[in-house]
This record gives sequence, C-alpha cells and structure tokens, in this order.
Amino acid sequence: MKDASRNAELPIGIFDSGVGGLTVLSALRARLAGEHYIYLGDTARLPYGTKSPDTVIRYSAQASRRLVEQGVKLLVVACNTASAAALPDLRRLYSPLPVIGVVEPGAQAVCRLLAPKQGERHILVMGTESTIRGGAYTRAIRALRPDARITGLACSLLVPLAEEGWMDGPIVENVIRRYLEQLDGEAGRPLDCIVLGCTHFPPLAASIAAVAGPGIPMIDSAVTTAEAVEAELRKSGLLRPKNKEETGRPLRFLTTDAPERFARTGGLFLDIRLAPEEVELVVI
Amino acid sequence: MKDASRNAELPIGIFDSGVGGLTVLSALRARLAGEHYIYLGDTARLPYGTKSPDTVIRYSAQASRRLVEQGVKLLVVACNTASAAALPDLRRLYSPLPVIGVVEPGAQAVCRLLAPKQGERHILVMGTESTIRGGAYTRAIRALRPDARITGLACSLLVPLAEEGWMDGPIVENVIRRYLEQLDGEAGRPLDCIVLGCTHFPPLAASIAAVAGPGIPMIDSAVTTAEAVEAELRKSGLLRPKNKEETGRPLRFLTTDAPERFARTGGLFLDIRLAPEEVELVVI
Repeated sequence: MKDASRNAELPIGIFDSGVGGLTVLSALRARLAGEHYIYLGDTARLPYGTKSPDTVIRYSAQASRRLVEQGVKLLVVACNTASAAALPDLRRLYSPLPVIGVVEPGAQAVCRLLAPKQGERHILVMGTESTIRGGAYTRAIRALRPDARITGLACSLLVPLAEEGWMDGPIVENVIRRYLEQLDGEAGRPLDCIVLGCTHFPPLAASIAAVAGPGIPMIDSAVTTAEAVEAELRKSGLLRPKNKEETGRPLRFLTTDAPERFARTGGLFLDIRLAPEEVELVVI
Repeated sequence: MKDASRNAELPIGIFDSGVGGLTVLSALRARLAGEHYIYLGDTARLPYGTKSPDTVIRYSAQASRRLVEQGVKLLVVACNTASAAALPDLRRLYSPLPVIGVVEPGAQAVCRLLAPKQGERHILVMGTESTIRGGAYTRAIRALRPDARITGLACSLLVPLAEEGWMDGPIVENVIRRYLEQLDGEAGRPLDCIVLGCTHFPPLAASIAAVAGPGIPMIDSAVTTAEAVEAELRKSGLLRPKNKEETGRPLRFLTTDAPERFARTGGLFLDIRLAPEEVELVVI
C-alpha cells in the first residue's frame, strides 16, 4: 500500500502519433484533475494510419518506451491506429504496467448508446486505412453486441485536412461526401451511430454531421477512455486526489520532431494554449 | 579507365520519401535506356514535407545509405524536400559518389524557359511546407536569374490527395484554388511559369492549369534531372550504353514499408505496372 501511494505520484503517460491524442488528454484532465500527465507525439513518423501493422507496432513500441523510461503509472495509447494494431504487444512489453487503448472504450460507448434499442443496429466506423483494414473496432463492438451491423470506412484524407487546420467549409464537406458515397446499397442503410475512430476526427464532427444528415449520434472515445483510466487507477489504488498539493509539473509535452509545429497544430486540439518552449524534443 | 568501365555496370540509385520519385525514374529510363536502376522509397516515414530540416536530413542519410550499401555509381535524390534540405550533407557523407538532386535541375529548366524573355518575370514555386520554408528553389533560381520575382506557396495537402489517387475533379481543384487564393496583392501578379516543386504534383498538372488559367508553362524537374545525370555520367566515363547486353536486373524497387501499398500507389506515378512481389521490404 505504501508502494502504491508513492507510485500514485507518477504521471500518466499518453502516447499518440501526433497531436490528435490531445483530445484524449483534455478528457482525462477534465475527469482526473489531480493527475500529472506526460504526453508524447511521434510527429517525426506520423501519420501511422497509412502504414503497415508491423511498422505501427515497431513505432508504437519505440515511442511508448520513451514514456515508460520517464516513469509513468499507466500508459494511454491515444492513437486509434496504434491501439488497433499494437495494444497486445505494448501490454506484453511493459507488463505489469497498465496499458489502455481507445478502441475498447469506444466500443463500450457505442454499446451504451445503443443499449436501449432492440434489434440489429447499423454502426459506421470512420478511421484510417490501417484501423479499418485491421478490423479492431468491428471485433470490439461485436464482442459486446453480436447483432450489430458494422461498416468500416477508411477516410485517410481527413487526417491531413485536420492537420492543415481545415476543419469546415465546402472542401472538407466534399471530401467527407466522397467517402460517404462509397457506402452504396446495403452499407448505405440508415445509420444508428457514427464512430469517430481517429483522434483527428472529433474537430470535424460538425462537417461530418452536415453531410451525413442531422441527428446521427457520434461516438468519440476520449470520454470513455478517461472513464476506463479512472476505473483502472481506482482498482489499483493509484488515483491521485484532486486536492493534493502540487509536487511536480502537472503537464509535460514531448515530440519527436519540430516543437513549434507541435505547439501550433496542437493548439487546435487542446483546450489550452501551448508555447513552443513548453514542448520538449526527443529523438528516436 | 578499367575501373570506370567496371563501375559503369553498377546501377543508378534513386532515393525518394515515397512513390512520387518514380516520375524521375521514368524520365531517367526514357533518356538512359541502357542503365540499371535501384529505387528506394522511404514509405515508413513519409511524408518528409511537413517535417523539420534536421529530421529530413537524418532520414535522408539513413535511407540513402541503404542504396549506397547496395553499390551504386550515382545517387539521385528524387524528393524535392530531401534535395532542398539534405543535399550538402549527402554529398559530404558519400563523397566521392556523385549525388544529384532535383532542385538545381528544376531551377535550370525555369531559366531555360524564361531565357528569351527580358525583364522581371514572376515565377510561382509550389512545394511542401518544408521545401518552401527552406527557400532552396528561390536561391537556386535567383543564382541563375537574379531579376526573377519568385513566390513560394506551400501546398501540403496536394501530397496526400495524390497519394489517395485523387488527381482531378472538383475537390482537387477547390484545394488548389484555396492555396492559390493566398496569393493576394503583389504575389498575385500574372505568372510567367509555375514550378511543380514536389514529385507528387506532376500528375495534378491538369487540375492546377484548370485553376491557375490556361497557357502558364509548368516546370517538372524530372526531365532536366535526367539530363543532369547523363552529363555527370558522361563526364566521369560511367555511362552504360543502350545496346549493351544485360548482366543483371535492370530495375529493382526497395521500400521501407508495405510493398503492396508501394506497388499500388506506385503504379499511378510510373509508366509500368508493378506487382507487390517485385518490391523488396527493407527495415531501417
């Protein structure tokens, strides 16, 4: 118990391919205000979403090792692509460190939303090429709701659009329309919910709604991931209370390339302003 | 002389961040049909164009080392971003191996085109964020034509659009329009030529012309790069004649990730079909 109380002081590590995972950091800070956080964005090698599973696993292991070396009490894999491809490997590599991804919490959020509704439901998962091809969301949702009808849609271009800061307007909507038009026939049936299966997509939610039509609920796994982190910390006695006095820096940011770019584009995804001096460069 | 004749049998190495440099390979094969070629696309870490100069230099050195290790008689840096950021480092690292980039040949092509015209001329250079920010094209053109008026325009999104195979249609044209609209006031003056300062852009040339207006000449450095390679090989007695009998594989392709993706998207940039089995995976 003494050990746990000392470890509770350690930060939570958050790993992402870039800045998109900062939406998960925001949800964590909103829910677990007493915690310290250290965030690493592997911007030197992004995007992960168009790369092969082997490469995603290798990059994820190398990048999250940098966080583990800093001393963290829990690792959050905030990148959907890395969660979908690399979670079993990361858990094995860093055992007994708890490692939490965003796919399972996303699947739980879907099932919670659809729970009151009987019968087959149609769920659209939008993600990167790698996430969709790997089928991790389909497996995770089906494990909880075997009767779900799940359509995966790779929307690779939405990542660079969001990175460029083009979050709305006719170009973004036309790109989304072109992807959604691929859902012909059976797959084009009315949708009961849309999973935003990439951390870059929540800022595009309004544009997606404008194209997909109003009233379709959208799932962003940031909030349910924060819930899963809280449950895990509570279970292991590692929660750091909200009112505890500060003993270190509550927030640290690491990036593998160009701190000034991280600060600039990161500001689009985070609820605080970031100065380039606050972002530390680490070379992998 | 004996040494040179033995070395003439070695392949020409071509390095690019991905598949865009295959347009340079096509131009080389059209001009130097007797040569053998070995092409490496660093797809595990693309794109280079949004990354910092330090990272681009490091990646370029690691990736081109793989080509140099295979034994090449000349190294072509087919990636504009790598040419702009890393050429002096690569020349120093692999001296006395001749290393030829695409920026200087591109600048020569501009000046050849504009040579008959007197007075200040307005040149638009379209490239990646890194290429434009580094200013290598501006320096190379101005060295040859000091009175040139040069405007650089970072068009980062055109790279993933071309990678997605979206080469024409309203979405591509609207993206191009949004970039060109940034050329307000002085920079918006009539253009005398457009430099396609990224190997991903030549397949988008028709869409660029549709937006920029007809009759503006476009410069793609592939052809002048092939001329520069021929001149260098001729000078050093390393040219392999067209009619010489085959002694090895005339074409080899290496990629640092996902051979099947390389074969698929590579087909959009090359004049031959590629099967995934023809593409070798190398891990860096």
